[in-house]
Amino acid sequence: MGFEVSDKNLKRAGLDYWHELDITYYDGLEDFFTRNKDGNFYYFTTKGLNTYSDVKFPNNSYLVFGREDAGLPESLLVRNRESCLRIPMRPRLRSLNLSNSVAIAVYEALRQWDFPDLASEGQLTQYRWN
Amino acid sequence: MGFEVSDKNLKRAGLDYWHELDITYYDGLEDFFTRNKDGNFYYFTTKGLNTYSDVKFPNNSYLVFGREDAGLPESLLVRNRESCLRIPMRPRLRSLNLSNSVAIAVYEALRQWDFPDLASEGQLTQYRWN
Repeated sequence: MGFEVSDKNLKRAGLDYWHELDITYYDGLEDFFTRNKDGNFYYFTTKGLNTYSDVKFPNNSYLVFGREDAGLPESLLVRNRESCLRIPMRPRLRSLNLSNSVAIAVYEALRQWDFPDLASEGQLTQYRWN
Repeated sequence: MGFEVSDKNLKRAGLDYWHELDITYYDGLEDFFTRNKDGNFYYFTTKGLNTYSDVKFPNNSYLVFGREDAGLPESLLVRNRESCLRIPMRPRLRSLNLSNSVAIAVYEALRQWDFPDLASEGQLTQYRWN
């Protein structure tokens, strides 16, 4: 992964939400594909030819991201041309950061699914909405 | 803003993209509204009743975010009920972080506008797309 989940700083960044995560660890890509045979896989990469928001994300979608510094291995990408997705960005820039890329991609899928189980309204604390 | 733009850590976080930013400083909200009379303003807040992706963002949209720790002042929100927008999220959680919220909101507007002037295709470096 390029970082240690046990690292103090990472847990601090997760604030009080760390226990809300559902994390599965795999022994590499082969193990991941073996254990998720029914998945629909999408590989997020600046190198892709397709735009992420042109996909209609089906159930059981897996949004796959690479390391912040290196991205996904090209040997994986080249075998999956149609499911390599790019987030459009300014031509001369290298890439969005990983956290923002995941947020953009996940919320596009959630938007398409009409935000299942998410709360879509909030409340003021010092005033009331009329 | 809650931080100093001159701060070394902020510039480091901006990497080599800092010079790509087009920043305007205002002397508070009144100055901001006075100098942008033709703007369409959208206030991003967990307290909103409307979902950000239900808006069709017009030209000259301003996406307004508050401080990471406090959000936008409720006295501003309560006067702008219809343009207070929420990003749906898990009911018990407090909020997405500011960086991710901005990324999600900006990319929803860019998606609606078909990603103007952004590059939508990349290239492999060690292989070629067939």
